[in-house]
Amino acid sequence: MRVLIPYSPANPKSRLGAILDPSERHSFARAMLADVLAAVRSADAEPVLVTDAAIRVPTDDECTVIVTEQSLTPAVNTVLATVEVPVAVIVADVPLLTASTVRRFRSTPGDIVLAPGLGGGTNGILIRDPGFRVDYHGGSFRKHRTIAEQRDATVRVFDSFRLSVDIDEPPDLAEVLLHGTGRAAEWLRQAGIEVAMAAGRTTAVRGD
Amino acid sequence: MRVLIPYSPANPKSRLGAILDPSERHSFARAMLADVLAAVRSADAEPVLVTDAAIRVPTDDECTVIVTEQSLTPAVNTVLATVEVPVAVIVADVPLLTASTVRRFRSTPGDIVLAPGLGGGTNGILIRDPGFRVDYHGGSFRKHRTIAEQRDATVRVFDSFRLSVDIDEPPDLAEVLLHGTGRAAEWLRQAGIEVAMAAGRTTAVRGD
Repeated sequence: MRVLIPYSPANPKSRLGAILDPSERHSFARAMLADVLAAVRSADAEPVLVTDAAIRVPTDDECTVIVTEQSLTPAVNTVLATVEVPVAVIVADVPLLTASTVRRFRSTPGDIVLAPGLGGGTNGILIRDPGFRVDYHGGSFRKHRTIAEQRDATVRVFDSFRLSVDIDEPPDLAEVLLHGTGRAAEWLRQAGIEVAMAAGRTTAVRGD
Repeated sequence: MRVLIPYSPANPKSRLGAILDPSERHSFARAMLADVLAAVRSADAEPVLVTDAAIRVPTDDECTVIVTEQSLTPAVNTVLATVEVPVAVIVADVPLLTASTVRRFRSTPGDIVLAPGLGGGTNGILIRDPGFRVDYHGGSFRKHRTIAEQRDATVRVFDSFRLSVDIDEPPDLAEVLLHGTGRAAEWLRQAGIEVAMAAGRTTAVRGD
């Protein structure tokens, strides 16, 4: 099964700007992408990077790369129109993802399997209905459910912590440090980022 | 299998004070508890409420109630010392929990199965090692892993979105509205609480 992974290398993860500079954000985003690619490949699925800029993929991360000038939603839909089902889409900023979770995801029944992201997004979609198209603009989980229902497709919700935690803000980094075992977690440790408490919530800060 | 559910009815969910008054928070906390009880019972497990005040459980939520003057950690450990394994502990503020998730949790192998809560907590622990004791004070996930490792117990991490989302702050209410199907979601809708966007993140507000 192919797994489309949209990735935009320009100014990634801007909401981490309070803790990481632009160069670091670029490097960290690549580490997260590497974790996602590794999880997909280890589950014997075929990662397909869908990107809006020609990027050099590290040798050990070799995979099919589709370069497009389209933005996220049309880019994914253009690829969906050309590939066979089943096909999946998984976001690039879920570094807690493991092969075990990918295997459980692909074996979940349903015409459309939706994996929630925290905050109303859709971090994974498994598509067995060839006419299904995505819409990632704002509150995508509800949109994807509606799109599926309008097509009379059966919808299942995939229950995964590892796929739900996308990394956008400093508190999200704490989840990577607490539960990650891959390159993104290692990257944060090397950068001296540590788990901390602030205003009663867990977050991440630079260590002394 | 027994599932201990710690519940403290005094001033619950204080960090929801910006959107719910004290009476509403009490009522909403009870709705969340009812969802957890229903999920556990529907999975053919036996819920045991561990509470620090004598509370009246609604008739359709009948379950064993253990009233204790101890705080959370010693209260749970006192009960653990008296019950047979396997036994589980699940927090009371995870209203997205379903019977399906509870069934998958109880069938996960390992001497100790830890279900992460967002922000470093432990929202579920499945205990097959009779000497294991809990420690919920601050960053409990790391503590529980260490406690298990010190006992040479095998540890598995349970991968669940539904069990990871505990409800503490207004943005968490959006998850209930987006993904909940039980009493807590219904309670919020009846109270006129709606999903909203603020500062680029999903949250919940009172509708007009």
